[in-house]
Amino acid sequence: MGTVLEDHQYVYPNMNMEQCKSRVAVPPPQPFFKSLQGSLKETFFPDDPLRQFKNQPRSRKFILGLQYFFPILEWGPKYTLNFLKSDLVAGITIASLAIPQGISYAKLANLPPILGLYSSFVPPLVYAMMGTSKDVAVGTIAVGSLLTGAMLSTAVDPNQNPKLFLHLAFTATLVAGIFEATLGLLRLGFIVDFLSHATIVGFMGGAATVVCLQQLKGILGLTHFTKSTDIIDVMHSVFSQEHQWRWESAVLGCGFLFFLLLTKYFSKRKPIFFWISVMSPLISIILGSLLVYLTHAENHGVQVIGFLKKGINPPSFGDFVLYSPYFPVALKTGIVTGIIAMAEGIAVARSFAMFKNYNIDGNKEMVAFGVMNIIGSCTSCYLTSGPFSRSAVNYNAGCKTAFSNVIMSIAVMITLLFLTPLFYYTPLVVLSSIIMSAMLGLIDYDAAVHLWKTDKFDFVVCISAYIGVVFGSVEIGLVIAVALSVLRVLLFVARPRTTVLGNVPNSICYRSVDQYPAAQTVPGILILEIGAPIYFANSTYLRERISRWIDDEEERLKSSGETSLRYVILDMRAVSCIDTSGISMFEEVKKIIDRRKLQLVLASPGGEVMKKLDRAKFIENLGQEWIHLTVGEAVGACRYTLHTYKADGQPETWSNNV
Amino acid sequence: MGTVLEDHQYVYPNMNMEQCKSRVAVPPPQPFFKSLQGSLKETFFPDDPLRQFKNQPRSRKFILGLQYFFPILEWGPKYTLNFLKSDLVAGITIASLAIPQGISYAKLANLPPILGLYSSFVPPLVYAMMGTSKDVAVGTIAVGSLLTGAMLSTAVDPNQNPKLFLHLAFTATLVAGIFEATLGLLRLGFIVDFLSHATIVGFMGGAATVVCLQQLKGILGLTHFTKSTDIIDVMHSVFSQEHQWRWESAVLGCGFLFFLLLTKYFSKRKPIFFWISVMSPLISIILGSLLVYLTHAENHGVQVIGFLKKGINPPSFGDFVLYSPYFPVALKTGIVTGIIAMAEGIAVARSFAMFKNYNIDGNKEMVAFGVMNIIGSCTSCYLTSGPFSRSAVNYNAGCKTAFSNVIMSIAVMITLLFLTPLFYYTPLVVLSSIIMSAMLGLIDYDAAVHLWKTDKFDFVVCISAYIGVVFGSVEIGLVIAVALSVLRVLLFVARPRTTVLGNVPNSICYRSVDQYPAAQTVPGILILEIGAPIYFANSTYLRERISRWIDDEEERLKSSGETSLRYVILDMRAVSCIDTSGISMFEEVKKIIDRRKLQLVLASPGGEVMKKLDRAKFIENLGQEWIHLTVGEAVGACRYTLHTYKADGQPETWSNNV
Repeated sequence: MGTVLEDHQYVYPNMNMEQCKSRVAVPPPQPFFKSLQGSLKETFFPDDPLRQFKNQPRSRKFILGLQYFFPILEWGPKYTLNFLKSDLVAGITIASLAIPQGISYAKLANLPPILGLYSSFVPPLVYAMMGTSKDVAVGTIAVGSLLTGAMLSTAVDPNQNPKLFLHLAFTATLVAGIFEATLGLLRLGFIVDFLSHATIVGFMGGAATVVCLQQLKGILGLTHFTKSTDIIDVMHSVFSQEHQWRWESAVLGCGFLFFLLLTKYFSKRKPIFFWISVMSPLISIILGSLLVYLTHAENHGVQVIGFLKKGINPPSFGDFVLYSPYFPVALKTGIVTGIIAMAEGIAVARSFAMFKNYNIDGNKEMVAFGVMNIIGSCTSCYLTSGPFSRSAVNYNAGCKTAFSNVIMSIAVMITLLFLTPLFYYTPLVVLSSIIMSAMLGLIDYDAAVHLWKTDKFDFVVCISAYIGVVFGSVEIGLVIAVALSVLRVLLFVARPRTTVLGNVPNSICYRSVDQYPAAQTVPGILILEIGAPIYFANSTYLRERISRWIDDEEERLKSSGETSLRYVILDMRAVSCIDTSGISMFEEVKKIIDRRKLQLVLASPGGEVMKKLDRAKFIENLGQEWIHLTVGEAVGACRYTLHTYKADGQPETWSNNV
Repeated sequence: MGTVLEDHQYVYPNMNMEQCKSRVAVPPPQPFFKSLQGSLKETFFPDDPLRQFKNQPRSRKFILGLQYFFPILEWGPKYTLNFLKSDLVAGITIASLAIPQGISYAKLANLPPILGLYSSFVPPLVYAMMGTSKDVAVGTIAVGSLLTGAMLSTAVDPNQNPKLFLHLAFTATLVAGIFEATLGLLRLGFIVDFLSHATIVGFMGGAATVVCLQQLKGILGLTHFTKSTDIIDVMHSVFSQEHQWRWESAVLGCGFLFFLLLTKYFSKRKPIFFWISVMSPLISIILGSLLVYLTHAENHGVQVIGFLKKGINPPSFGDFVLYSPYFPVALKTGIVTGIIAMAEGIAVARSFAMFKNYNIDGNKEMVAFGVMNIIGSCTSCYLTSGPFSRSAVNYNAGCKTAFSNVIMSIAVMITLLFLTPLFYYTPLVVLSSIIMSAMLGLIDYDAAVHLWKTDKFDFVVCISAYIGVVFGSVEIGLVIAVALSVLRVLLFVARPRTTVLGNVPNSICYRSVDQYPAAQTVPGILILEIGAPIYFANSTYLRERISRWIDDEEERLKSSGETSLRYVILDMRAVSCIDTSGISMFEEVKKIIDRRKLQLVLASPGGEVMKKLDRAKFIENLGQEWIHLTVGEAVGACRYTLHTYKADGQPETWSNNV
């Protein structure tokens, strides 16, 4: 113990206990509206978007405002020929991926294949004007397509009533767009943060598995297939129709899948393989179409895309079904797919912004995605976002600005105007192979292993979401994932950590005895650290937990015959804020401690806490002298009083030193 | 700056920087299942209910187990004659309150008045055996009754189909009981904690206002009345029927209300007035009945209770409507009223346990409330809990154990068997007065003023709940209240506080510069404190906020021409736990800081955080030498390196001292 006391001596050589009294400051009072403004700003404008508008003339403010909503006005004038060269290469590269992927994903959503091309034409143009990311390549996304297809199919059969189904898809896209734009404008982007990384890994992996399983239909050339997406139904559907399997289709499908996976596998080895890997979907489509054309395999069980209408997007704003009884389905689909699309797009934009060290504004991105989907829904497009695969290719192909989206858009337009007849003989099985090879990349084993190693609960969340999607449905998986995420937040809040602190040898620090087994507790004093802000959600728990710590300590002391407990020090360093329930909790804890004839001491409470404790008159009630700046000081003060009031009147250690 | 450095000198006089390196410990590894067990225990068994079972022989364990579920076995054998005396007085006192209140609240729920008496007979007996509180007096509650009536009325009209309505009420009670018992057995009692104090104050005040407004019907002797509970409809209903007002009824009602409020007002002055106040409802009923009997006012517009069936509770387990189309309404009503009843009962039990310094077990209470309602629903009782008014009277009348409930129960039984005919002439208007005077006590102005003074957001939550109940409906108010509470938790979690720290003069402490305006920042070093555990819900925000702090600081330094920034120290003292998203956040923050050619330094990370950072290899990545036990040490190390690597090779201040 000697060292501790000597340390104290070093710290405050000329200070007596009286001086300690007033050292924990109550922060200077702030007017109500100023503090309200501060906290509103921190909640909704943490990125301070209005900073650049400060101290600017009005005309400049107008230009800045336009640039705020249309970032192209900011980077457009600085655009150089070198940028154009890079963007041209990147744009053509992503177009070669966008065309086959667009057609494939449209099939996944039970929509006409041409919609995939339409959706790669208009939305990228909108995004190029409004987006803040330089790397996002716009297009349809696999999970969004699957969800659109699956959710709308519950209300309308896409084969029996394809027109209504199409109109519902446009309506859902409109809803998704309005929803995204509204969230962005209301600056509620942080809602996306409540989908944890673990949830997304599990959910995406599950969705990828489900999408792969759906492709068995195309690969095996089946015509009848289950409508549900869970693994049991799909497997039953596949193995109950063994006699219907078409070997031609299977051979073609497995061949192309092997080719695609092989190029992907080698793409990381050498730059040249990267280009082959990027072009491989287009190569597969060309090879497959040629093969079918030459062998007339379409007559031998290999299904082909067939006739695609020439021409660019027809308008579709007359097709919304806002007043039909099916509108609720479209509404639900729109909101669910809107959130998913937004979460994927923003995550992708953030990741690449990090690589290249620039900032993207989550709320502005949401508005861009929203407007893109609103305009898209009026021009025969369905749900688009920033898919990971396409954006990664864009990034790797060396894009410099969002202009690569415009290039892709032009390439798709040319395809729509002149090249659609070429897809007549494209076999569906090749599309299935393309989807499968893209999906296998989304199942992130490494991330799951990493989760298992670092955080078991996160792993459980991840696996639950995966199992929910694969064995239940995409929606069940999503509900499980969100529920677990929110439950986790609530549990975190409801059960904050409390730890017993001890003195770290050779220092004046008091730290957790679990973390520092060498740390020594101080006789007669129990030091507890409260490890989180105190709210209504955890105040009852904390009160009970503190009583239990005191019970435990008194029992331990009694059984080992040590000095009985006299002081309970609460280290409040980690309590950055508190609400009224938290303050009542302190009042109750004080009563409990008083009744046991112990003394409550607070150490290092923060400004917010001091302010509220002061207003609630708790500081008066407890006495300023029992509030200290550090645990060390609090321990010092306790020992001082302990020895001063000792019956033998012979203070031997600490007080001598002061 | 000199003082700071000298302090350092005192603290570590013989220590060089190398020694600091390994001082932040990674806690000793724990086997997975042990840590899982630990956290499960902390989540579901924070009160450690199994402690007493430890190291006991099997027969003792059996007895302890029985005592666990039936606390009467524990306190029963120790029961003394003195206890009986006190409980007898308290029991008779609460019975005198229970009878008029029971009848009044049953009217509130649109149920036959006799049900109020039934509900004060069986449930108290069950609670006396299973409850852990010594002060709770069991009975029906005002808000629960109002909600039951209002929610079931939406499906079934109690006047047109009273039998079905009654059966639905039994079913809802059964559901509430099963729900409460299940939550208790699953140890999910902490769900109640998510209703914050502010929410409850607002909600209860609103409900009390609504109940008072409903009483205008009885007081004014109206026969037609609106079914909605919002103030606008009620006021419209009252003032559109001015010609229907009965002055006889109004005079009687206002007279008794004045009497009740007067006795209540004086009850706090002298003990004798307390007894008058307690007996006043019964006195009112007796006086009112006599008055009506003598004047035959029932023929002059004063409505009376009329015939009440003699005899104790008939069985009702055959009356549940589990398979009817109305079951969903009963289910919803049961769950909502179950939560409300539980929240009130547990809050009451906790408050009085605190006064008398004993512990109640929230989960055990839930099981007791649940079983009491399950048995109640089979014996013609509707929803019961521990109402505040009755429990407060019980406590003030000097009850010693839950046996006072048994006394009350016996008194009610005697009433049921022999005295029901006496209530024939009891005027309804007296019941309205009793309800109103009880409700006016539930509107807690002082609490609202206190909330305004200490925490504005809590005040807003409180007022929103109040307005929601009064202007919308009880359900809308409840939804608003719960939504605001959850939103508040999520906002707390999503927007943790980050503060810039400075050196408090004459100490080695680093504290918030907002709280201590005298605290000095250290040139070239930015010290940030992260004020909460880091989860997926706040990691994105924290990353952006940290970048913004760095931006702000660099801008400030540039404009004032001070030393440029070199180090960013994150004080992790308040980060008691972290999840995988939080770890990714650190990796990203490190990248951002590296890219700006700054150095990231961590100060005083806790055990949990060190363990996870270690597993994720972040410590290796950052380097052990950049992790320090205290901010002071971290600052010391930074200054040391800053001066050592200075171009002029002339370290002048800190390094000289070491």
